[in-house]
Amino acid sequence: MSEVEETLERVKVQPGVEGYVICNRQGQVLRRLPSMSQAQADIYAQKMSGLSKKARGVVRDLNPKNELRYLRIRAKKHEVLVAYDQEFLVIVIQRWTPAQA
Amino acid sequence: MSEVEETLERVKVQPGVEGYVICNRQGQVLRRLPSMSQAQADIYAQKMSGLSKKARGVVRDLNPKNELRYLRIRAKKHEVLVAYDQEFLVIVIQRWTPAQA
Repeated sequence: MSEVEETLERVKVQPGVEGYVICNRQGQVLRRLPSMSQAQADIYAQKMSGLSKKARGVVRDLNPKNELRYLRIRAKKHEVLVAYDQEFLVIVIQRWTPAQA
Repeated sequence: MSEVEETLERVKVQPGVEGYVICNRQGQVLRRLPSMSQAQADIYAQKMSGLSKKARGVVRDLNPKNELRYLRIRAKKHEVLVAYDQEFLVIVIQRWTPAQA
């Protein structure tokens, strides 16, 4: 898990990060930002592992030799980023603000 | 469609852009990069409108007042970006290269 731990250390200090969750592909939470509740982490893990599974299928449908690496969904004020690894999903929730023009 | 036309003009000249498709939320193609085949455009429109619909549901499940604005999936060497508007989806397919360290 050391590579993932390093990633988390870097993620935690990024401005605007509101939470992170590490889960397996079945959506079971392995780690979460301590200030996140278990229930909250479970919801993000389940929803994002489900969406990632569908996205992975789309990538394969478009090109069977291809593989999903990363998924990003942006809503009005927040973004959820998912790094899709062989075994784990690293999910980061952060505030989103438009780039300065 | 003028705002969308302007967006397309800017998209077309971006380095690495390999295709774009504009479709409605049902996945019907309205515009495509001329060099893309209709069949290719149809596949991207159907797959990405389906995935966007699921992503929109996830955003709503996490926060009923929220709304999906943007979706990005990255595979090994390509990215598909979807701007999710009230009526249209603007889908851009581009090559992806790691940022220079």
